[in-house]
Amino acid sequence: MNIGLAGLGTVGAGVLRLLHDNADIVAARAGQPVRVTAVSARDRTRDRGVPLDALRWHDDPAALAADPAVDAVVELIGGASGPAYAVATATLRHGKPFVTANKALIAVHGTDLAALADSAGVALAFEAAVAGGIPIIKALREGLAGNRISRVAGILNGTCNYILTAMRAHQREFAEVLAEAQALGYAEADPATDIDGVDAAHKLAILAALAFGQPVAFDAVHVEGIRHVSALDMAFAEELGYQIKLLGIARRVEAGIEARVHPCMVPHDAPLARVDGVFNAVVAEGDFAGHVMLEGRGAGARPTASAVVADLIDLARGRAAPVWGVATGALPAIPAVPMSAHVGAYYLRLMVVDEPGVIADVTAALRDGGVSLESMLQRGRSPGEAVPVVLVTHETNEAAMRATLDRIAALGSVVEPPALIRIEPG
Amino acid sequence: MNIGLAGLGTVGAGVLRLLHDNADIVAARAGQPVRVTAVSARDRTRDRGVPLDALRWHDDPAALAADPAVDAVVELIGGASGPAYAVATATLRHGKPFVTANKALIAVHGTDLAALADSAGVALAFEAAVAGGIPIIKALREGLAGNRISRVAGILNGTCNYILTAMRAHQREFAEVLAEAQALGYAEADPATDIDGVDAAHKLAILAALAFGQPVAFDAVHVEGIRHVSALDMAFAEELGYQIKLLGIARRVEAGIEARVHPCMVPHDAPLARVDGVFNAVVAEGDFAGHVMLEGRGAGARPTASAVVADLIDLARGRAAPVWGVATGALPAIPAVPMSAHVGAYYLRLMVVDEPGVIADVTAALRDGGVSLESMLQRGRSPGEAVPVVLVTHETNEAAMRATLDRIAALGSVVEPPALIRIEPG
Repeated sequence: MNIGLAGLGTVGAGVLRLLHDNADIVAARAGQPVRVTAVSARDRTRDRGVPLDALRWHDDPAALAADPAVDAVVELIGGASGPAYAVATATLRHGKPFVTANKALIAVHGTDLAALADSAGVALAFEAAVAGGIPIIKALREGLAGNRISRVAGILNGTCNYILTAMRAHQREFAEVLAEAQALGYAEADPATDIDGVDAAHKLAILAALAFGQPVAFDAVHVEGIRHVSALDMAFAEELGYQIKLLGIARRVEAGIEARVHPCMVPHDAPLARVDGVFNAVVAEGDFAGHVMLEGRGAGARPTASAVVADLIDLARGRAAPVWGVATGALPAIPAVPMSAHVGAYYLRLMVVDEPGVIADVTAALRDGGVSLESMLQRGRSPGEAVPVVLVTHETNEAAMRATLDRIAALGSVVEPPALIRIEPG
Repeated sequence: MNIGLAGLGTVGAGVLRLLHDNADIVAARAGQPVRVTAVSARDRTRDRGVPLDALRWHDDPAALAADPAVDAVVELIGGASGPAYAVATATLRHGKPFVTANKALIAVHGTDLAALADSAGVALAFEAAVAGGIPIIKALREGLAGNRISRVAGILNGTCNYILTAMRAHQREFAEVLAEAQALGYAEADPATDIDGVDAAHKLAILAALAFGQPVAFDAVHVEGIRHVSALDMAFAEELGYQIKLLGIARRVEAGIEARVHPCMVPHDAPLARVDGVFNAVVAEGDFAGHVMLEGRGAGARPTASAVVADLIDLARGRAAPVWGVATGALPAIPAVPMSAHVGAYYLRLMVVDEPGVIADVTAALRDGGVSLESMLQRGRSPGEAVPVVLVTHETNEAAMRATLDRIAALGSVVEPPALIRIEPG
C-alpha cells in the first residue's frame, strides 16, 4: 500500500520513522508492505531522520490525492480548514481513503467529510485524532459496539492535565505553572486552544458522535478551560477528597445528550483522578461492559504515529466501519441538551468579609434558589478581612445554580467573583 | 446473521439478553440484524429471562455447525477439550466462523484451531476469552498493530484480585478471605483454576501470542498462584511501598519471550497497583504508543456478552484479522525463555531465630550466591524466638536466587520455608 503524506512536522516524521523502523511488523500485520511514496511539506531540506530521496514531492498537498503512486493519503497538517480540509475533500473525491490525526478537522467538518467518504465508498479514519496512542476510537466503535453507552468521560488534553498535576504537586498558581510548561515544551507559545478547553472539546465531540452513533456536533459542546483554577481551590479540593481535572464528558440523559468540557472535582479514588501529567484517559460506560477505561500517551510524535499506522493497517486488511459506527440515519437523532439543563453537584468557593450575618445571607440565597447544601467549610478567621467559604451542594440544576450564584455575587460581603467547579464521579 | 449458541449458562443467557435488549444498536452497528436462531444446552426448561420458543434446539452442540439456519457458532460451554473442542472443530470444518469466550480452549488448542480456521478461510474470534468486557484482543491485534510490543502485563483473574484486595484491606489471611469470597460467589466452590494461576496463564498465553505475533504456547508459561501469599507479606509490602498482585507478564528479552504468572510486588503508584477488587487490567508497552492500559470488568455474564457480541459485529461487517495478528510464519519464531533465566528483583521474607550471627549467615549465603541486597528490614526483637527478616535484592538471575534461597532455607536458624515474591514495575 502506497501512502501520500501531507505534512512532515513532528508527527509526520514519526509516521515515517515507524513505517521505516517497524516495516517488518507492519507488513506482517497489514498483509502487505506499507510505504510512503509521496509527501507534501513546506521544507524539503530539513532532516527528518529517515531517507526521503526516493519520495515524490508535491508543493500542493491536495495534489497527493491525484498522484497515481498514492493509494491513501495521511493528513498531518492540522487546522480545521485551509490546506487540511482541501486535502481531505480532494482525497475522498478521488475515491481514496483518507487518514488524519486532525481533531479540529473532524470535529468541525466531520459530517460533510463522512458524507463524502460514504458516497465515494472509501474510509475516513481518525484514530490519531483522539487521545494519541490510545486506541479509543476502535474501542468505542468496534470493541464496545454491542453496548448502549450512557457516558463517556476523559482527560483529553495532556497540557491541561500536566498543568493541573503540577499545580497540585507544588501548590502553585496556574500562571506560574503555565509559564514553566511553556519553557519545558509541554505547552505551546500560544496555549489558548489547549488551556481554554477547545482541543478537548474537539476530541469530546468526536467521542460523543461515536459513543451515541450520531453525526459530530462540535457546536453543541459547552466549553470552559482551566485559566480560573486557583491554588486555593486545589487545596480545598484536596481537603474535601477531590482532585481537579479538566474532563470532557458526554452523557445520555432523558432529554438527550449533554456534552461539556470544564474543570471538575473528581473523587480522589476515581480512576480518572489517578491519571497524572501528560497522560490521557477515557472512561466509557456501557450497559453490558460496565466501566471500561483506556489510559496512555495522548500526544507526541510516536504515540500519534502508532494510531495513524493502526488505521493504515486496517485499510490494508480491508477492515472498515461506518464513520460514526452506524450508517447515517440508522439510529434515531438525539437532541443536544444545553448546559443550562445540566443537573449535578457543585463546589462553590466565595471570598467573604468575615463579619456577622454573612453566612446567613449566603445560605438564604441558596435556599431561595432551591439549592440544597451538602456541606460547608470555612477555614481560618480574620474579623473584618476576606476569608474563603466553601460550599458543596447536592444535585442541582445548572440554571438555578447560576442564578443563585449571581445573587450571591451581588451580596455586599462577597468580595470576589465566586469560584464554581462541578463535581463529577470521574 | 444467524447465530447458533452452544451453552446457555450465565454467559449464554447474557448474550441472549444483549442481542434482545440492544437489538437496535447491534443491527445498526453490524449493518444487519444479529439473532440467535439455534441453541444447545443441557436444560431446555430453565428460565433464561428471554423468550426461547422460536429457537431450534440441538442435543449435541456440535450439530449447530451443520444447521443450515446457523451462519456462525458461539461456544460458551467452557473447558479445554470435550464438547467445546468438538463444537469448535465441527464449526470450522463446516466453513463457519467460530466465536468463543473459552480461554482454556484457545490457550491449549489455539494453534490447531487457527490452522483449521485459516484453511477454511473463516474467522476464529475470542475477544471474550481474555479480560471480559475489556477489548484487549482488538487493542493488541489492531489498535497497537504498528508497534513492536516489548511487554504485556495484566491483572487477569478477578477472583485472585478480589482476594488480594480483601487481604490487604482487612489484614486477613488467604484461607479466611477465600472462604468468604466463596460464600459471596466471587470464588468457585473448586477455586484451584483461579487461585493457582491457571486461568490467568490461559489468558496470558493468548495475550503473548497476540503481542508477539506467535502461535499460542500455554506450556511455556511459568505458573504460580496466590495460596502462599500471607498477611505478613502483605504488611511488609505496604511498609516497603508495594502492593501484592497476581500478574501475568509476557516480556521480550534478548533470548526470546518469557511468560509467567505469579504474585508480584508492584510499586503502589504503578497503574496496575491501583486496580482493585474484581477488576482486570492489561498494560501493553509498545515502542511507539508507549504504555497503554485498559481496565474494566474481566468476568461476568454482561461484560463477557459485550465481548462476544463485538466479535459478532466484526463478523457481520466482514472485519477480520489473522488469528495471531500476522499470517502464520510471517514473523520469525521467537524461543521461549525458561523461568530459570528470568532476571529481576526479589522480595524475600525469612522467619529466623532471633540470636546472634543469623543475619551474618544469611548475608554470607547471599554474597556467595552472587545476590546483591538493596535493603533489609527487621521488625521487632524477641530473643530466642522466630522473627521475620525481609530482604529486597537488586536484579538477580532466578536460578541463582533459587539456589541461594535453598542454602538459606537449610540454615539451622531459619525456621520456616522462606517466602519469595518477585518485584515488578507494574
